[in-house]
Amino acid sequence: MKILLVHAHPEARSLNGSLKQFMRERLVQAGHEVQVSDLYAMQWKATLAADDFAHLEPGAPFDPIADSQRAFEAGTQREEVAAEQAKLLWADTVIFQFPLWWYTMPAILKGWVDRVYAYGFAYGVGEHSDRHWGDRFGQGVMAGKRAMLVVTTGGWASHYSARGINGPMDDLLFPIHHGILYYPGFEVLPPYVVYRTGKVDAAAYARITEELGRRLDTLATTEPIPFRPQNAGDYEIPALTLRGDIAPGEAGFAVHAAPAGRNSG
Amino acid sequence: MKILLVHAHPEARSLNGSLKQFMRERLVQAGHEVQVSDLYAMQWKATLAADDFAHLEPGAPFDPIADSQRAFEAGTQREEVAAEQAKLLWADTVIFQFPLWWYTMPAILKGWVDRVYAYGFAYGVGEHSDRHWGDRFGQGVMAGKRAMLVVTTGGWASHYSARGINGPMDDLLFPIHHGILYYPGFEVLPPYVVYRTGKVDAAAYARITEELGRRLDTLATTEPIPFRPQNAGDYEIPALTLRGDIAPGEAGFAVHAAPAGRNSG
Repeated sequence: MKILLVHAHPEARSLNGSLKQFMRERLVQAGHEVQVSDLYAMQWKATLAADDFAHLEPGAPFDPIADSQRAFEAGTQREEVAAEQAKLLWADTVIFQFPLWWYTMPAILKGWVDRVYAYGFAYGVGEHSDRHWGDRFGQGVMAGKRAMLVVTTGGWASHYSARGINGPMDDLLFPIHHGILYYPGFEVLPPYVVYRTGKVDAAAYARITEELGRRLDTLATTEPIPFRPQNAGDYEIPALTLRGDIAPGEAGFAVHAAPAGRNSG
Repeated sequence: MKILLVHAHPEARSLNGSLKQFMRERLVQAGHEVQVSDLYAMQWKATLAADDFAHLEPGAPFDPIADSQRAFEAGTQREEVAAEQAKLLWADTVIFQFPLWWYTMPAILKGWVDRVYAYGFAYGVGEHSDRHWGDRFGQGVMAGKRAMLVVTTGGWASHYSARGINGPMDDLLFPIHHGILYYPGFEVLPPYVVYRTGKVDAAAYARITEELGRRLDTLATTEPIPFRPQNAGDYEIPALTLRGDIAPGEAGFAVHAAPAGRNSG
């Protein structure tokens, strides 16, 4: 397979840096083609701003959506943005690796999303009608590709459990899994999460690389999270609320994944 | 009151820019002292990186936590970081205003959190024992201050409703409300959210400013979200799971706020 690893940690001599190296080597040894976008090493510009758009006259009002669309369609995006889009189109599978900072991704990776996910590329794709509300949530440019998060945190697994004070990890990651990855069409694999990073000794590191290695070995066969496609009948359009007879009485993030073996779509 | 407005939109001539101006004027007219951190106008550096820390020798390994602590304690943080911390200490109330980009804040604001929330300032505060797990979630440097989000999105309210495809807005904002604001001690007011920003005509703008104006007029008296304090008996320590007899059988973000009038703490 062709695998893109998007890595967002500032220090190569860190747990995350070691895991980046481990993943690259494991994937290459398994015969995959691997590209790595090491955002800190690339000095990735995190802030989506008017200076991303060469077509803007000095002093002209900047519209993040309209100017993104114009530059994408005209081929005038900044080179590094177009290069990341090309890597996404090249890849069969994309792995995003980052430490959880304040319960979500570091700013540098959020800025990769803000800038690379152009209008016409990751959103604003497809027709809108009373049966179809854009190619998104299960459709889109990334359809047929897989994505997976590899996340580290200093907190304990219990702190991120169903009743843990931080909130459940699956819920904290839902806006990324569903809103950033499933939205443009990726199938989203369950994440691999390392807890208590401050306590990773040699034995723990051996366990982590064994577990993570298995996940890398099974990228092509692991069952994705069964998110419900937007345009296949599960949602009312244009309200985009889940149909009343599906998971009746339930609410929240969890209703957007079908229970195993009971996909209504 | 002393009010800090942290604003994260790239264009002053936008709905968000107009609302920033409206808020500043409304608050000043009401007799408050107001400071604005307009992150795009300040060209805020979004990426927490080794170059934030003057004490680091060239080539020395960078540890985001340890180096943050060292710089905070030694007073060698970058000037713009210390200035934002001083504004937070000055303020009674902090308003964060931003467009929802990919279901969370723009990278420039996430980078404000990543950099301003230093170890010893926003985390790593207080003792750890079997009754107290740091001054956080209801305690901390921001205790006694209030915070509120003002958020805009192009999507419809129904898309963000209990069964809407994006997930409920309250759940999307929980990692910010609870994990970024309540964590260092803020009392968190319910957010003010503008939906369908692409359809805001003069009539809608009048309604929005009337509603938002009322929210600004009642900053001091609005009931905060009743998040449960970490160290007041509701949580097992150190597992930091909600005590079994509180909201038994329930799970997810919602259990961390007490039902109105039934706070067990």
